[in-house]
Amino acid sequence: MYDIIIVGGGAAGLTAAIYTCRKELKTLIVSPEYGGQTNLTSHIENYPGFMALPGWDLMTKFKEQAEHFGAETRTNKVVAIQKKGEKHFVVHFEDESKEEARAVILAHGKLPKPLNIPGEKEFFGRGLSTCATCDAPLYKNKSVAVIGGGNAALEAVEELQKMGAKVYLVHRREQFRADEITVKKVRKLQNVEFVLNHAPVKINGEKFVTSLTVEDVSAKKRKDLKVDGVFSEIGHIADSNMVKDLLRLNDHGEVLVDENNATSCSGIFAAGDITPVRYKQTVIAAGEGAKAALEAHRYLTNGAPTGEYAK
Amino acid sequence: MYDIIIVGGGAAGLTAAIYTCRKELKTLIVSPEYGGQTNLTSHIENYPGFMALPGWDLMTKFKEQAEHFGAETRTNKVVAIQKKGEKHFVVHFEDESKEEARAVILAHGKLPKPLNIPGEKEFFGRGLSTCATCDAPLYKNKSVAVIGGGNAALEAVEELQKMGAKVYLVHRREQFRADEITVKKVRKLQNVEFVLNHAPVKINGEKFVTSLTVEDVSAKKRKDLKVDGVFSEIGHIADSNMVKDLLRLNDHGEVLVDENNATSCSGIFAAGDITPVRYKQTVIAAGEGAKAALEAHRYLTNGAPTGEYAK
Repeated sequence: MYDIIIVGGGAAGLTAAIYTCRKELKTLIVSPEYGGQTNLTSHIENYPGFMALPGWDLMTKFKEQAEHFGAETRTNKVVAIQKKGEKHFVVHFEDESKEEARAVILAHGKLPKPLNIPGEKEFFGRGLSTCATCDAPLYKNKSVAVIGGGNAALEAVEELQKMGAKVYLVHRREQFRADEITVKKVRKLQNVEFVLNHAPVKINGEKFVTSLTVEDVSAKKRKDLKVDGVFSEIGHIADSNMVKDLLRLNDHGEVLVDENNATSCSGIFAAGDITPVRYKQTVIAAGEGAKAALEAHRYLTNGAPTGEYAK
Repeated sequence: MYDIIIVGGGAAGLTAAIYTCRKELKTLIVSPEYGGQTNLTSHIENYPGFMALPGWDLMTKFKEQAEHFGAETRTNKVVAIQKKGEKHFVVHFEDESKEEARAVILAHGKLPKPLNIPGEKEFFGRGLSTCATCDAPLYKNKSVAVIGGGNAALEAVEELQKMGAKVYLVHRREQFRADEITVKKVRKLQNVEFVLNHAPVKINGEKFVTSLTVEDVSAKKRKDLKVDGVFSEIGHIADSNMVKDLLRLNDHGEVLVDENNATSCSGIFAAGDITPVRYKQTVIAAGEGAKAALEAHRYLTNGAPTGEYAK
């Protein structure tokens, strides 16, 4: 029986573990991978204390610090959480193993939204990527399609163009959600072609991607873009199925928390991108993780009510 | 005219500056000193990314990073903030100079509560201290009084005893607010004398402290404790006079904020210990500072409403 099981190994979860372990709470972190969204940043300049370093380097430091204070880590995916009683949770993993804990901290962030088109599964990691920052260097002087119309998509276009790639920007609308300043900048770039009012319908290839089929959203006419890579930048979604019967979520599936990171289920706390926190930043997720941990400690020590739930 | 004036140079204010500067907002930080409460920690182990380092060392890194991105810093105290109009504030300093800005972030934390007894002003820094972590090493094998009954006071006793000081713990009640585990530990220490149900009434000395006069709270009988130092550990207060007519405060004078760190005054944001945030930790203050900065940027860029004010 653990005192705390932390779901998720990004900035929020690892910081929570540093705090719970220093409070001498027996802590297990469970995550399919460690480092979270921060890993995807090749060069983080806005985490206070470090002028600049790779995101995965920073996350390695977080993880080592959590382990130094006694956190156990397990590489697995949580599929269900069951409340057995007051201060008694059973956490079920993908491989059908399970563990028990007196409290749970949800810090598993968000996942890239799926495109839901043929070829998506086959070519993921074989030309299809959801992280321009990670994979842009692979497409030097090659041809790629970026899908999306928000800041992430436009920034991916910039990054790939800078690497010398020919870039198609595929967006199902005429207008962008991205900041006007970014759109203007991208419109001026050489070697970038806007494929607007078109939706992606199929990813084609053999071993690796060779083209993307797109369809005009009104005329329904299809065409193939010959590309070596496809970057899907259409946003992220919260996966909160594991707790949907236990606590209050908002319409985006985000876990509602009060100002001390308690959820509407007594004994479950949440921090970072899985909550509705407006800004997705490493230092913010870390701060929220610390709050969730201290509030969980308070709950386990005093059994005191943990704030006004999920307003 | 600045875009942002940040009041306070601790973890919250310096992080806010890193973020506002990276958004290319012309930023001025004003604070009587830099580093805030983190400076008082000789050895910080729970700031994620650093296994252990002195608090002032970490705060120097924060400050350098803020300055690297273009933050101006000024050593001064803010005494009044005046709202001239939408996106127009005048910030007045102790030396009667002033500056103008389009938005303000309050991040000036809290100050040690005054004892309000004779000798307090004369002997501050001459035997009277509010920071055991900073000044304990000066009292090796000397005699000191610690005033207070919370965790901070009990921890100060431990720290001073460890340095080899003879310690009187002066507390006006029989019971402690400190955690029971800490009280038990301190009760077992050698060379520690509990002076309970006594209030401090006067600090005596010539050039430096030579004794503390205490009074029995019921019998009103006074006695002198011969000490070389007095540590006041009776808590902290928020100084929010400068904005008390502009925005909503709670009963402790803390500045109320919504979940995005906006105050009830449009254009003023707040972060860190000056707000009612439950846990006072460097990483939490840093996270809140980043939120306040991004929300201030959003306000200045979109003029959008900034969340539900001060619930």
